[in-house]
Amino acid sequence: MTGIYEEEINGFSYYIFEEPRDLEYLLVALPDVGLVGSIAGLHLIRELGMKDVVGIDSYTALPPVVVIHKGEAKHPIRLYTGKCIGVLVTDVPIIPAALPMFVQSLVQFAKMSKVKMILSITGLGTPKRIEVEKPRLYALAVGREAEIEAGRLNPAKIENGMLVGPYALLLKEALRRRVPNLVLMVESFIDLPDPEAAAVAVESISKITGVDVNVSRLLEEAEKLKLRLKDLMKETRNVMAKMGKTYEYRPPLIYT
Amino acid sequence: MTGIYEEEINGFSYYIFEEPRDLEYLLVALPDVGLVGSIAGLHLIRELGMKDVVGIDSYTALPPVVVIHKGEAKHPIRLYTGKCIGVLVTDVPIIPAALPMFVQSLVQFAKMSKVKMILSITGLGTPKRIEVEKPRLYALAVGREAEIEAGRLNPAKIENGMLVGPYALLLKEALRRRVPNLVLMVESFIDLPDPEAAAVAVESISKITGVDVNVSRLLEEAEKLKLRLKDLMKETRNVMAKMGKTYEYRPPLIYT
Amino acid sequence: MTGIYEEEINGFSYYIFEEPRDLEYLLVALPDVGLVGSIAGLHLIRELGMKDVVGIDSYTALPPVVVIHKGEAKHPIRLYTGKCIGVLVTDVPIIPAALPMFVQSLVQFAKMSKVKMILSITGLGTPKRIEVEKPRLYALAVGREAEIEAGRLNPAKIENGMLVGPYALLLKEALRRRVPNLVLMVESFIDLPDPEAAAVAVESISKITGVDVNVSRLLEEAEKLKLRLKDLMKETRNVMAKMGKTYEYRPPLIYT
Amino acid sequence: MTGIYEEEINGFSYYIFEEPRDLEYLLVALPDVGLVGSIAGLHLIRELGMKDVVGIDSYTALPPVVVIHKGEAKHPIRLYTGKCIGVLVTDVPIIPAALPMFVQSLVQFAKMSKVKMILSITGLGTPKRIEVEKPRLYALAVGREAEIEAGRLNPAKIENGMLVGPYALLLKEALRRRVPNLVLMVESFIDLPDPEAAAVAVESISKITGVDVNVSRLLEEAEKLKLRLKDLMKETRNVMAKMGKTYEYRPPLIYT
Amino acid sequence: MTGIYEEEINGFSYYIFEEPRDLEYLLVALPDVGLVGSIAGLHLIRELGMKDVVGIDSYTALPPVVVIHKGEAKHPIRLYTGKCIGVLVTDVPIIPAALPMFVQSLVQFAKMSKVKMILSITGLGTPKRIEVEKPRLYALAVGREAEIEAGRLNPAKIENGMLVGPYALLLKEALRRRVPNLVLMVESFIDLPDPEAAAVAVESISKITGVDVNVSRLLEEAEKLKLRLKDLMKETRNVMAKMGKTYEYRPPLIYT
Repeated sequence: MTGIYEEEINGFSYYIFEEPRDLEYLLVALPDVGLVGSIAGLHLIRELGMKDVVGIDSYTALPPVVVIHKGEAKHPIRLYTGKCIGVLVTDVPIIPAALPMFVQSLVQFAKMSKVKMILSITGLGTPKRIEVEKPRLYALAVGREAEIEAGRLNPAKIENGMLVGPYALLLKEALRRRVPNLVLMVESFIDLPDPEAAAVAVESISKITGVDVNVSRLLEEAEKLKLRLKDLMKETRNVMAKMGKTYEYRPPLIYT
Repeated sequence: MTGIYEEEINGFSYYIFEEPRDLEYLLVALPDVGLVGSIAGLHLIRELGMKDVVGIDSYTALPPVVVIHKGEAKHPIRLYTGKCIGVLVTDVPIIPAALPMFVQSLVQFAKMSKVKMILSITGLGTPKRIEVEKPRLYALAVGREAEIEAGRLNPAKIENGMLVGPYALLLKEALRRRVPNLVLMVESFIDLPDPEAAAVAVESISKITGVDVNVSRLLEEAEKLKLRLKDLMKETRNVMAKMGKTYEYRPPLIYT
Repeated sequence: MTGIYEEEINGFSYYIFEEPRDLEYLLVALPDVGLVGSIAGLHLIRELGMKDVVGIDSYTALPPVVVIHKGEAKHPIRLYTGKCIGVLVTDVPIIPAALPMFVQSLVQFAKMSKVKMILSITGLGTPKRIEVEKPRLYALAVGREAEIEAGRLNPAKIENGMLVGPYALLLKEALRRRVPNLVLMVESFIDLPDPEAAAVAVESISKITGVDVNVSRLLEEAEKLKLRLKDLMKETRNVMAKMGKTYEYRPPLIYT
Repeated sequence: MTGIYEEEINGFSYYIFEEPRDLEYLLVALPDVGLVGSIAGLHLIRELGMKDVVGIDSYTALPPVVVIHKGEAKHPIRLYTGKCIGVLVTDVPIIPAALPMFVQSLVQFAKMSKVKMILSITGLGTPKRIEVEKPRLYALAVGREAEIEAGRLNPAKIENGMLVGPYALLLKEALRRRVPNLVLMVESFIDLPDPEAAAVAVESISKITGVDVNVSRLLEEAEKLKLRLKDLMKETRNVMAKMGKTYEYRPPLIYT
Repeated sequence: MTGIYEEEINGFSYYIFEEPRDLEYLLVALPDVGLVGSIAGLHLIRELGMKDVVGIDSYTALPPVVVIHKGEAKHPIRLYTGKCIGVLVTDVPIIPAALPMFVQSLVQFAKMSKVKMILSITGLGTPKRIEVEKPRLYALAVGREAEIEAGRLNPAKIENGMLVGPYALLLKEALRRRVPNLVLMVESFIDLPDPEAAAVAVESISKITGVDVNVSRLLEEAEKLKLRLKDLMKETRNVMAKMGKTYEYRPPLIYT
């Protein structure tokens, strides 16, 4: 937390410890269905030995929290970088009332950092997840570049449905500000941390970014992770309920 | 969601994908009693092969939702057009606190688009709906043009009663801004999606607009629709309760 | 609702269909104890064949309601006029948070209309109402003219007590703006519509205004009215509770 | 309520019926522990034949209440004067959210009226009150003049404790605005009106002001008063709970 | 409370009775886990015979409370000084909504008073506290000077974890304003006052400040203190729950 300068972006404070450079992909890993994004982000940070270069915080929109990692104080939201990838993780779910401001601030930061594409990673809640061996990947793209990348992954197609929560807002704001955004959704448990689904997400990220990331450690530690993250999952579940996440599990009005 | 420009109207964002032209009738299909409006809107869009040309959204007044249709991301409120008709549908009920702003924004948009008449479609909750074979049509008109159209439909007459919710506000705002508004109400179930009532509404819309719309598919798919829309109905019920919808089921003070 | 102009008075919209002229008495008939005011207002409007000339509304302070009377759309608060009398009625109780603004707007309107006196009509909740054959009339006057009129009615005297709710605010605002205000209170049921008490109020209004109004129809229809108004009574009860109406049923601090 | 002028002081309206002159002591009698202040105030007003010369009110901070006394309408908060004493009483407890504004307005009024000292009268809740025959008097003084007066009463001393509620705020505001303030606390019941404790307070007020006030009538009417004031006591209890009155019954952090 | 001047710092009022001079260490003793900070502060104040020189208060952010100590009225938050140490204590927990403003105001005051270092004293909740004989000390430092002091204490190291509540905000604000801040955490009970843990904290403060403070009296009075402070502990527990204190008892996302 030393040697910093601070930047105010749309009501959030960005503490810049090191200027992020040559970022091509900004992977946004927020707590959501199955914690798929958070787990994938955690794995990338550890596997690639990424370094936290930006801390993001707010006295009013976030709970009064300091994260301690290796004896050092950290902000609850952090950007880690390594190779051409930035990974944004948060230790506390963002409350619904603060989401619009946070998402707007994040897209503005992405533009300022000249990120080429925002990658959103999340789970697609599947009631029959337990019967699925290899969870399927779905994609939703905003902007031409994102569509091309999505095509290379050969994802399954969502015919009709709804996306609810932080990634829905992020997609809309990316569209408004013309930042390409690719949303990767992996079939997952709804209310349980799902490291196997996260592994599928990590493999896709490898393909897109060209940065090879091994997922064997993630799969080995799967059980330990489920236990470790059960409280974050519970907090996330509460926040999702307040956000109208249930919309995601009913059909939209219009269909073919 | 590409090739757009954005317009801010009274706190709501209008994403214009294609300039709506030659709109004569703006059919407003909001979730209300029996989902009569939503179902009628859905049927017109599919039967006439309408195209969504405007997306309407708000980060604060609506939940953080993206609708996916045929693999494409859409805003939760959308305007579809075809022939001389525009159909406005929403995938999520609008919360009472946001209604005044939304309705004002909508009437302003109608004026900007030079719409000739706003058609409001909804149900008239009837406790004995189950015994009714062919639900009756009622009409309430604001403005001379609307009265003339209403007359052509030969609707039943509401002697005394109350209209509560989005269509009540819309009627008042239309009056203030001098946009003709015809409210079509069809006898319907209160808390169950009612495709048969919607079919009656569609037939009236055909008569008014002169655009022929077959309702056989709507009647065939009735059971499927009831199932498909049960969650939206439930959400709508909660919103209606907060809006004082119960006023609608008691007599007004003054009577003959 | 046609041929109107609109005037904004202290946050409420006044839709003027016909300029009220030569109004001497503005009878304010708000839902309160026993619905005495509302019932008296209803009876005068019907008996004198009064006409609604002003609609009053607010998108934020009132629920989204349109009243339908003889097939025509009406605002929830309306002023009816006939002879030298104006009667203000509302179809929905006004929530406590909106009362100060509404009352201020109303007194300002009374001044603009050059009303000579505001007549407030309400019930005085009596636990032993059932044993009372002819409910007694009480009066409370602000301003010399109101005191003189009160004297002519020879009302019973309230030694000590409290008046709580819309008529308390109205009395205070009338005092501030120097508009004479006479509050007529008739012994009544608290939580039941009380047409017999309303009949006593109507007789007093006849005496004050010099306009003869027969109450026989009111008494004949009493049972029907009690049934018809039971929902409005229930809504009013809820609003009264939030307003601290219970203060009315306990002694004030100071006594002789 | 006639012949008045109105003054706005810090959000409260002061209706001046008669300019208060030569006030030396402003006795503030707010509903608090045992209603000791309210009862003492009531007794002084009646015993000295005091006259209400100022009405204090607020449309938003107080419930919509008019007090009727001897057939006349009154504001819920009133200042009575007689000899060199002013007594401020209120018929409704002041809600916590409105307290800061009210207290600031009151001290400003005291300064404008050139009051020499504010006397606060309240109870000191004692669980063993029932065993106490003659309740003891405690005092807390702000400013030299108040300390001198306190000394003359030879009160018991509060070593450690907390004062919570309107009188705590009043003491702090008096200090800020350099108005001497003497808080007299008499051992009393917490949740029951305590006329005996009020009698002790009245005796102290007699000593301080030099105005002789007999307390025999107060003691005779004690039982009647307890019954009469039980509802005000209940309302006060609710307001005290919201204000954190329980702090008063636990020891402070620092002690000798 | 006399002879004062008042300073407004970020929405809080600072009543300066005596200008604090030559303060090197500002010990912040807020109610938190095990009341470790409050108890340590209390002990220092009594053992060193410290004097309260500044009172801190707010009409809106704090409950309406006056603290009485030795018969004198005091503000609920107070700064005591003695030697080179200032100790800030509060008699009421600060509600979450007021924390950001309070912490910002406090750091600004620390800068204005030219404090060299802010010492935060709190407990580290340990479920197995009962089995621990000598609670261990942990430290978290912001700024070089704080790190050096921390090193001299040879504290245990927190590898991974979270710090939640007032001390987390204080640490972040100290960092922003570049005031060295050393957070001392002692293993303690979560929901019980823990004088033994406070004794460990006091010993560390002795080492850092060079001011010798005997803890024998603290340990002798331990049982008495636990009883005396049980209500403050209960209030603190409620406030901690609202602040998301539970985050402190689950692992953070990122680990080695």
